[in-house]
Amino acid sequence: MNMTASHDLGRRERRRQETFQRIMRAAFELFAKHGYADTAVEDITEAADIGKGTFFNYFPTKDALLLAIFDAVADRFQQFRLHIPEITDVRKALTEFTHATLQEPARSPNIIRGIFGAALTQPTIGEKFAKTVQVARQTAIALFERGQKLGQVRNDISAELLGRNYQQFIFGTEMIWTLTPDQDLHEWINSMIELFWRGALAPTGQDASNRKEI
Amino acid sequence: MNMTASHDLGRRERRRQETFQRIMRAAFELFAKHGYADTAVEDITEAADIGKGTFFNYFPTKDALLLAIFDAVADRFQQFRLHIPEITDVRKALTEFTHATLQEPARSPNIIRGIFGAALTQPTIGEKFAKTVQVARQTAIALFERGQKLGQVRNDISAELLGRNYQQFIFGTEMIWTLTPDQDLHEWINSMIELFWRGALAPTGQDASNRKEI
Repeated sequence: MNMTASHDLGRRERRRQETFQRIMRAAFELFAKHGYADTAVEDITEAADIGKGTFFNYFPTKDALLLAIFDAVADRFQQFRLHIPEITDVRKALTEFTHATLQEPARSPNIIRGIFGAALTQPTIGEKFAKTVQVARQTAIALFERGQKLGQVRNDISAELLGRNYQQFIFGTEMIWTLTPDQDLHEWINSMIELFWRGALAPTGQDASNRKEI
Repeated sequence: MNMTASHDLGRRERRRQETFQRIMRAAFELFAKHGYADTAVEDITEAADIGKGTFFNYFPTKDALLLAIFDAVADRFQQFRLHIPEITDVRKALTEFTHATLQEPARSPNIIRGIFGAALTQPTIGEKFAKTVQVARQTAIALFERGQKLGQVRNDISAELLGRNYQQFIFGTEMIWTLTPDQDLHEWINSMIELFWRGALAPTGQDASNRKEI
């Protein structure tokens, strides 16, 4: 490959990334405004200012775009997971991790409603969603394992159980928030974390006083 | 009204109740087997062995039947709430209450998926569902207030917040369970309650030792 061809390839790849991001941004905004179900591919292509043919070069269907969102979210969890061995304050990390999961695409009740609704009513989306849920859970489990290792998290129940319970709590918070979205989600999440953390904490009773002396 | 007319009315009302129950049972079974979205009114009338006209005497639409289910569930919460002033063991009551909420209609992943899915994707159902959620939450709040009064539940955070957090936890548990329903829901719920209770418990540290001496 000569230099010019390599440059062309670089430019093409950059363009491709730009267009991909433009479609994703337009889709997010429309999903947030009108919900997933009520957004058509035409709405997305118009907002992104691209032709329908271009859209279909990236995503064969609107559902495929949703699946790409799941992949992006799963990627974010896996990135976070790589840094778990360096964590020293598990409660702080758990809080940051949780708020990070509520960035895009989960910033709007319409988007959460759209994602949960599609996952619950369309089996193929549900299956793919369940896989992302698994990746997220493994990340949470790894974080609780780290907490147990550091003596910050109770070890009389398994990290698996803590991770699953924590995930349940996040999902329920998001779901109820989408039904009554008059309050700030991050505030809800903070009170949820406080309560959960107290349940998950290494005990301050008989067990903890031993632990402190180690 | 003479005795015969009164008898006729009694019999008519009994018949009406029987048919109502027959429709509900058939609908539950079909929702559990095929999901809410994939069950037609015809499927229900066939399984209940009634005419379509009879069905529409009770419910103008399939959605109306779902709303009647919400009402039945809200009724159950309100019944439970009446007995809260007599409760002496709040953790036990919370456990019973929670398992009771997972009887019909929540016994099957397909039904939960159908209800949550419809509530998230159809605004009119979502609104009605949100009202049932409110009734359930008020019941949970009343239970935590009782727990605070008895010194069994921490009182440094409000019963409102505990009630909402608890509900979030239940919803999340149900939702994740429907996505990966390979395990027993009641077992999941038990581990969830254990963790939550520890977070909600009146403290055994400085505060609780005071409380014990009262």
